[in-house]
Amino acid sequence: MDLEAQWIVGFTDGEGCFHVGIARHSEMSMGYQVLPEFVVVQHKRDAKVLHALKKYFGCGVVRSDRGDRMCWRVRKLDHLSGIVIPFFERHELKTLKRQDFLAFRRVVRMMAKGGHLTAEGLAQIRRIVEGMNQRHVRSGKVKSCPP
Amino acid sequence: MDLEAQWIVGFTDGEGCFHVGIARHSEMSMGYQVLPEFVVVQHKRDAKVLHALKKYFGCGVVRSDRGDRMCWRVRKLDHLSGIVIPFFERHELKTLKRQDFLAFRRVVRMMAKGGHLTAEGLAQIRRIVEGMNQRHVRSGKVKSCPP
Repeated sequence: MDLEAQWIVGFTDGEGCFHVGIARHSEMSMGYQVLPEFVVVQHKRDAKVLHALKKYFGCGVVRSDRGDRMCWRVRKLDHLSGIVIPFFERHELKTLKRQDFLAFRRVVRMMAKGGHLTAEGLAQIRRIVEGMNQRHVRSGKVKSCPP
Repeated sequence: MDLEAQWIVGFTDGEGCFHVGIARHSEMSMGYQVLPEFVVVQHKRDAKVLHALKKYFGCGVVRSDRGDRMCWRVRKLDHLSGIVIPFFERHELKTLKRQDFLAFRRVVRMMAKGGHLTAEGLAQIRRIVEGMNQRHVRSGKVKSCPP
């Protein structure tokens, strides 16, 4: 299955999720790990779409999600910075998911400079992520994002 | 906002719903009304996307859905037959939603020939719709479709 850029943008406007997790992690200098990820979840019967996305971008992994669902997920910072983010800069999202993307990009850019390794940077990332979550809750779109 | 065909296909693969309602209606010859509709639901903050879809296809209505949601909905048989169905014939859906589309097309084609006005035709439509619903339940995608 070959995909076109605009199909990917439309599908991401519907099903994509720019998510930033912040988890306790005793081995990290600030005691927390910041985990940005781009995720697309589908029922396992549509796994071929996830594999086509992986092939198109040349990064990420296709794996099981909860229940009958699978996901394609990109977590490596280099791949997010060098592949996923430039794609959505060239091909603009049309829904408010674009706001999530812009917040996500801010976090990834900060992390590339080690911003998450300072107390001030981590606090700033928390504020950005809080804004993303509020938008999800308000728009009732939590469902497509990991917790 | 201008849309490209492939964006619409991708967005429909994510958020679109080909739905056929069958409702009691005392004034219909068979006692039932068959209501095929193509629907895209979004949070009201993304209403501009729904208006862009309406503009692109030149048919349907944008109206309130449940709660904070709005939808773009095409119900007129002529518009489904002459605009929506040919679009998705030219631009193939990539997920299993294509199966719903093909079942939906069968129903609309039958209705164009008055097939829903005979007991046999109505029974056949019921079987087609049952297959669509089963697929939704199995894939956990009920959420995007009206009840």
